Amino acid sequence: MSKIAVFRKEHFNAAHRLNNPSWTDKKNKEVFGKCNNPNYHGHNYDLVVKVVGEPDPQTGYLIDLRMLSELIKENVLDKFDHKNLNLDTKEFKDLNPSAENIAIVIYNILRDKIDSKLDLQVRLYETERNFVEYPVN
Amino acid sequence: MSKIAVFRKEHFNAAHRLNNPSWTDKKNKEVFGKCNNPNYHGHNYDLVVKVVGEPDPQTGYLIDLRMLSELIKENVLDKFDHKNLNLDTKEFKDLNPSAENIAIVIYNILRDKIDSKLDLQVRLYETERNFVEYPVN
Amino acid sequence: MSKIAVFRKEHFNAAHRLNNPSWTDKKNKEVFGKCNNPNYHGHNYDLVVKVVGEPDPQTGYLIDLRMLSELIKENVLDKFDHKNLNLDTKEFKDLNPSAENIAIVIYNILRDKIDSKLDLQVRLYETERNFVEYPVN
Amino acid sequence: MSKIAVFRKEHFNAAHRLNNPSWTDKKNKEVFGKCNNPNYHGHNYDLVVKVVGEPDPQTGYLIDLRMLSELIKENVLDKFDHKNLNLDTKEFKDLNPSAENIAIVIYNILRDKIDSKLDLQVRLYETERNFVEYPVN
Amino acid sequence: MSKIAVFRKEHFNAAHRLNNPSWTDKKNKEVFGKCNNPNYHGHNYDLVVKVVGEPDPQTGYLIDLRMLSELIKENVLDKFDHKNLNLDTKEFKDLNPSAENIAIVIYNILRDKIDSKLDLQVRLYETERNFVEYPVN
Amino acid sequence: MSKIAVFRKEHFNAAHRLNNPSWTDKKNKEVFGKCNNPNYHGHNYDLVVKVVGEPDPQTGYLIDLRMLSELIKENVLDKFDHKNLNLDTKEFKDLNPSAENIAIVIYNILRDKIDSKLDLQVRLYETERNFVEYPVN
Repeated sequence: MSKIAVFRKEHFNAAHRLNNPSWTDKKNKEVFGKCNNPNYHGHNYDLVVKVVGEPDPQTGYLIDLRMLSELIKENVLDKFDHKNLNLDTKEFKDLNPSAENIAIVIYNILRDKIDSKLDLQVRLYETERNFVEYPVN
Repeated sequence: MSKIAVFRKEHFNAAHRLNNPSWTDKKNKEVFGKCNNPNYHGHNYDLVVKVVGEPDPQTGYLIDLRMLSELIKENVLDKFDHKNLNLDTKEFKDLNPSAENIAIVIYNILRDKIDSKLDLQVRLYETERNFVEYPVN
Repeated sequence: MSKIAVFRKEHFNAAHRLNNPSWTDKKNKEVFGKCNNPNYHGHNYDLVVKVVGEPDPQTGYLIDLRMLSELIKENVLDKFDHKNLNLDTKEFKDLNPSAENIAIVIYNILRDKIDSKLDLQVRLYETERNFVEYPVN
Repeated sequence: MSKIAVFRKEHFNAAHRLNNPSWTDKKNKEVFGKCNNPNYHGHNYDLVVKVVGEPDPQTGYLIDLRMLSELIKENVLDKFDHKNLNLDTKEFKDLNPSAENIAIVIYNILRDKIDSKLDLQVRLYETERNFVEYPVN
Repeated sequence: MSKIAVFRKEHFNAAHRLNNPSWTDKKNKEVFGKCNNPNYHGHNYDLVVKVVGEPDPQTGYLIDLRMLSELIKENVLDKFDHKNLNLDTKEFKDLNPSAENIAIVIYNILRDKIDSKLDLQVRLYETERNFVEYPVN
Repeated sequence: MSKIAVFRKEHFNAAHRLNNPSWTDKKNKEVFGKCNNPNYHGHNYDLVVKVVGEPDPQTGYLIDLRMLSELIKENVLDKFDHKNLNLDTKEFKDLNPSAENIAIVIYNILRDKIDSKLDLQVRLYETERNFVEYPVN
């Protein structure tokens, strides 16, 4: 039987700054431009979590989306919402909070919490026009 | 030559109720929560139909999107739009109208009507934040 | 000093049926068309509440949007979300749940709960393409 | 002859923190909640500028929207985009950067730059669900 | 009793060119820039029609939105959809098809067709970021 | 290590006409309907470019999205924005500008400009409801 995917969209707001501490200020500014602003800037992040597997014939659900929403809230939003990603989170103390890295971090957090029989992918919108998806096969 | 995908978005409004008749009322309420409301609730469903194949060099079309739109209207929207999925449709008389099951039913209806050389996938938005996709390889 | 408006967007899902009980079935079907389906249909309603007044210089807020959101949840969403408006609510027992009437009912509920110094207006989206606003001066 | 309104939508990303320095930390936390986070958080702000007047019969334009876009970029986006509103801007050194206050500040900046025969209003989206409009008659 | 507003959103696709025939090519290019391209360019126009009045207590409707939709289709979309506004329509033979002028023309067409007891306003999106509204009191 | 995808959304406005010059006018009208209008019609095209590969650990970027945006502007938007695709571009002089063909042309243009280690896919929205994606594996 074919598999099905279910998606849940959540959002959080955060400040961040892109910077590589092993580089000079000049190089950081050249590479990261306005995203290197020392006092941070911020985004409304939209997060779409995709879970793939076979639905349960008893419920017609692949996964209860209210439970998936709760799981994202407890494990991702409570960590990152209304935070400064560089200063307030252990995940980005030593990791540049690019959209790519935020998506990978969120994937790894959720991968531990969701049944390994189910495939998982996250899409993260930093803005309406810039977004990332992880993993890609 | 690589294949191309074309997508057509349609929408319909319907009432539904999630319920498993082999369970007690108590269990149904525990599992389905507000979606188990005996008098139904409803949604604006957005349906995106994806068709994959090789375009016709004479037209530059993979499939005429007006024809695809007509086909969806005649076979899906005329059945489900402004209906109570549980009471007014034969498809969900004995099948729980979860988003997953609605997507599978719509896929099966359309699969019979579209040239088997073309691959088909449906995405169904129950709300902006809850959606499903079928099939997934 | 000029006034400012703040807006909060919320949403709820409900089933409804348009029907005038003093009319024949034939006339109801003629006037309300598919919206008269006896077994109901449904919508994802988007509700935008607008409050107008002068901001508080201590906070820079006109009204705390978290409080406004809570107030809408307790007084509107808890009544109407995942409900059948005709059968499950006292407000529409004897009132046709057209978008116009739903907006007026929500306005009247909220008007009682919000400081009378503040002006109030509600916009209700029945679908992305059909919506209403009340009151209009 | 009736007037017409033209609208231009722009966006910027910024970090901010809501705080009243004349209050205790405890009171600030009570009033502003997560928005009081000492290390800031951030948003993608969508800005809609509305200009009202009579179109020029020679062009059919009320105002050239490319010029309006340039004017917003030079006077608003260059100040606030990818900035920390509290730390990097003179406008919010002593003014709490609530959505209300940001909208009023942007209005005042643009009011000086746009022909006084034209009426002006700004709408600022802090998120898709929280937004403000200034002025309101 | 307060009035209510109902809105119907429709869309059409058209080609156009901004040009003032009494000007030199050089001046037209300076004033209208890329929009003056001699071979035309085009847009997906979104049209929102707002009607204001008192709802009918028998129906709970201000105006039947299916009838309003039909009226817009017959009087506006059939004229302008998939057309070259400059070449294919009598309305813009001698009138520059700026967003402002298109909105005024549509308003005038609809004003003749809608009960004069009802107020009317049109909003026209040329793009998601450039839009106009007519009339404004 | 798994790959990641980054997406950049851009847009352009253009006029076009669907027509096969080896067919009679009658057949063109039958096949392409309103899209065959001799004087052209037009669209706001939304273009989403997807790039897939492994992020650079020094930056946390797969590709600098400002550079990707510049590359799309220089190679795609400068060619097609505010143009008549049939008359003003060499790419569609002898190729029907269906959404499918526009997507394939844009893919081929960008494929030459982007590092061959990175996978590439384009999605093109002709309208919100009609869109295409190329290539599909």
